[in-house]
Amino acid sequence: MTNLQNDLFLRACKRQPIERTPIWMMRQAGRYLPEYRAVREKADFLTMCKTPELAAEVTIQPIDLIGVDAAILFSDILVIPEAMGMTLEMHEGKGPVFHRPIRNEEDAKELKSIDPTVDLKYVLDAVSLTKKELNGRVPLIGFSGSPWTLLTYMVEGRGSKNFAEVKKLIYNNPVLAHKLLGKISDIVADYLSAKIEAGCNAVQVFDTWGGILTPDDFNEFSLQYIQSIISKIKRTNEPVIVFAKGVHYNIEGIAGTGADVIGLDWTMDLGEVRKLIGNKVALQGNLDPTKLYGSEEVIKNEASKILQSYGKGSGHIFNLGHGILPDVPPANAKLLVDFVKEESKKYH
Amino acid sequence: MTNLQNDLFLRACKRQPIERTPIWMMRQAGRYLPEYRAVREKADFLTMCKTPELAAEVTIQPIDLIGVDAAILFSDILVIPEAMGMTLEMHEGKGPVFHRPIRNEEDAKELKSIDPTVDLKYVLDAVSLTKKELNGRVPLIGFSGSPWTLLTYMVEGRGSKNFAEVKKLIYNNPVLAHKLLGKISDIVADYLSAKIEAGCNAVQVFDTWGGILTPDDFNEFSLQYIQSIISKIKRTNEPVIVFAKGVHYNIEGIAGTGADVIGLDWTMDLGEVRKLIGNKVALQGNLDPTKLYGSEEVIKNEASKILQSYGKGSGHIFNLGHGILPDVPPANAKLLVDFVKEESKKYH
Repeated sequence: MTNLQNDLFLRACKRQPIERTPIWMMRQAGRYLPEYRAVREKADFLTMCKTPELAAEVTIQPIDLIGVDAAILFSDILVIPEAMGMTLEMHEGKGPVFHRPIRNEEDAKELKSIDPTVDLKYVLDAVSLTKKELNGRVPLIGFSGSPWTLLTYMVEGRGSKNFAEVKKLIYNNPVLAHKLLGKISDIVADYLSAKIEAGCNAVQVFDTWGGILTPDDFNEFSLQYIQSIISKIKRTNEPVIVFAKGVHYNIEGIAGTGADVIGLDWTMDLGEVRKLIGNKVALQGNLDPTKLYGSEEVIKNEASKILQSYGKGSGHIFNLGHGILPDVPPANAKLLVDFVKEESKKYH
Repeated sequence: MTNLQNDLFLRACKRQPIERTPIWMMRQAGRYLPEYRAVREKADFLTMCKTPELAAEVTIQPIDLIGVDAAILFSDILVIPEAMGMTLEMHEGKGPVFHRPIRNEEDAKELKSIDPTVDLKYVLDAVSLTKKELNGRVPLIGFSGSPWTLLTYMVEGRGSKNFAEVKKLIYNNPVLAHKLLGKISDIVADYLSAKIEAGCNAVQVFDTWGGILTPDDFNEFSLQYIQSIISKIKRTNEPVIVFAKGVHYNIEGIAGTGADVIGLDWTMDLGEVRKLIGNKVALQGNLDPTKLYGSEEVIKNEASKILQSYGKGSGHIFNLGHGILPDVPPANAKLLVDFVKEESKKYH
């Protein structure tokens, strides 16, 4: 499969035979690495996203330093609303802020239609450069937020506890909500297609805020758009991963979207989910990211439990159940990666 | 059952025949009511908790104004750590803060052993006074945080996104964590027994932060302590409700604690949970609190779906899936209560 020296991740996505379980970590190109912080000192977050050299540099760091089996392009899900004309302020540690959130038809009119190959060309350039610099060592993953998760940020404008504003929108003006979700979906499908065209070997859709919805609302406002995107992505054999945090109540629905891989948070039992949908899709996850604050024994015990829970055979990509936290010691991340690489052999 | 004029709530807890589904709302004595805010203007939050006349006054407001079928004593779960010697600052809207959180053995040594009948006498006085003023109109519910949830606040000291500190404690010093949880459990059991002795007709245990744990950690650090408390509470026929938000992965375990009623958040399907455990316990919930931002149609549709999902027969107490939000119009809360009272008749 391709000219990759290490294609374990891609084979696991397709549930093809592998020698050991591959591992990567969400937010692996991030603040826990001193080498990342050194780059970050020279440029702000958005500048890093928009400068292919810097994006490529931090994307590759965890391959060299931690030894993960896949790279994920350094970027942010909010580059889409930013390209649509929303002014984005990134406060690292505090989260992103849109000072003029979208709340009604008037606000929505100001959103530009965009062509990702033009308006997000810097991302595609970063993909090309990263591919070149990776030089076939490991596959490169591209990603996007789901339409629902992007809409949540666009409407709330900032971090939220109860998501009151986006919920008011979907309850009281579902027509506008669906119009926006449809528009975002088309952009996301084009964006992920362009990333694959530029060289990404797989793409992941993050539905970070799917889990705040009731099961019916999730189907109406998130799931159908994820399904629509997956049906539209132009790809040959590149797997699609869907990670819908907290959506414990419709794992089967997510497995029916056409996704190749389902990401799971740490509240799910991998073995039980495998029984439910493991003949349809591969599973990715699901170590509680805070376990990396633990001792060597804690980390190894928990990783062992997860490997054992999935059991024998291909179809598991080891990952965290959410992004790696900024104050985790890099040595603990490396310890996890080394341990999973060795320990997982007996399951294959 | 007792001399109550309206004992629908208590009969539903015991799955005894009822004429219609009872309803109350978590945080119903709260900021969404202008009458509550008027009292709050005269006294700070802790003073309200500690002044039986004020606590009784706001406890009874939603009975008169909204027409709910049960009162829940106005108080806060953090009165226990406060009585144990931790200095508590309540910033309404921002959440509570302990400036000196518990992180190690040294910190833990400073926690006092308390006798709730002495150190939390003001709560028991508020129960007695409220009972007198309610004059048998509806039952009175008392509550406590679960040991795990109390420990989380005591260790984090303030609102948290990743709960890094309490997780570091349980991973790296489980001995201390269990020692603290055992100590808190004894206090909670005594506290809830004293509340029942003082006149509460039912008690609810809030495990607000159970859902941040992996399934194994939940069993070890939360569930066993809830079970221990329930076995120790001195009661005759007073039901115990357990609400463990986000613990979708061990509903059967919670139903096995000896609880009479399980509270559910809005990500759960009431009908499916009833199939799973409805022959053991009653179910309470589970309207998404943000639905009360919706139109009359939205609120009625969603309430109908929930009643229909539970189906015919006793054993359902209508509630929200989390506390009512401070900016919900009281008229919408009243609309929900009136609608559930009428619409639910056909299920009985």
